[in-house]
Amino acid sequence: MQRIVNLLVVKDNHVLLLKKPRRGWYVAPGGKMDPGESIYETAVREFTEETGAKPVKPQLKGIYTMVITDESGESVKDEWMLHTFTAFDLDGTPFETTIEGVLEWHPVESLQTLPMAEGDRTNLLFAVSELGIQYGTFFYTEEFKLLREVIQKSVEGDGQ
Amino acid sequence: MQRIVNLLVVKDNHVLLLKKPRRGWYVAPGGKMDPGESIYETAVREFTEETGAKPVKPQLKGIYTMVITDESGESVKDEWMLHTFTAFDLDGTPFETTIEGVLEWHPVESLQTLPMAEGDRTNLLFAVSELGIQYGTFFYTEEFKLLREVIQKSVEGDGQ
Repeated sequence: MQRIVNLLVVKDNHVLLLKKPRRGWYVAPGGKMDPGESIYETAVREFTEETGAKPVKPQLKGIYTMVITDESGESVKDEWMLHTFTAFDLDGTPFETTIEGVLEWHPVESLQTLPMAEGDRTNLLFAVSELGIQYGTFFYTEEFKLLREVIQKSVEGDGQ
Repeated sequence: MQRIVNLLVVKDNHVLLLKKPRRGWYVAPGGKMDPGESIYETAVREFTEETGAKPVKPQLKGIYTMVITDESGESVKDEWMLHTFTAFDLDGTPFETTIEGVLEWHPVESLQTLPMAEGDRTNLLFAVSELGIQYGTFFYTEEFKLLREVIQKSVEGDGQ
């Protein structure tokens, strides 16, 4: 069971995104948890490794179960967990190019239109525009076509 | 990689705990994620199955990496993820006894003294008394002696 963590920095109404070379899709910087790490430690380490800058006060905004199936949606090929953080400042200046792709600042609003996995759009828009934590499951094909999503959310103190 | 979810209901300054028969230790009701579930869905399903009552508006309070080692702490035997939720109300009346153990309401303050795994005490006290999300790694022996803990936290909007 892979555990993946990504982190979206929002600063001056812009977000820092990584453009991946294969499809030209945008993602938030991140990567895989190492054994024994907390998800918070992974978020800081992976973001710093990928961008050369350190996120300030990251906070969790979403936890997602990612299910990969065949085209019919019947046969499950893989399942992993995705944890999405935001931060509102960083220490240092990010790289412009990395071995993973190109790092670019884009206006927050462009999250609605830039090419990316549809589930990532749901997660990143939530992370920058809503209070609380989002949970859910995304069902994708192996070609990353989104078949179905099921979403829940909570806000601290709601119902208290 | 096991994914475990537990949920602590706090109501009228009391918490609902499950007393496990083997050691007499207390835990928050919970259990294992099923494939394709979100952690939110697991929290609701497992709590409802174990107690007979449904949590109202659960919210995530902690995510922990649990590492089991030999007595020396050198050799890793197992690793899993624990997700801790709270809720401040429930629909229905909880069972008094279940196949898992005995369900009991205890004053919130008793979390400081009731017999339980030391990491659970850290997590449950955070869940009922602090704002935000706690992250961390707990290193235990196979006999559930806590060797070491590393903790981080975040509060929504902090640093914004």
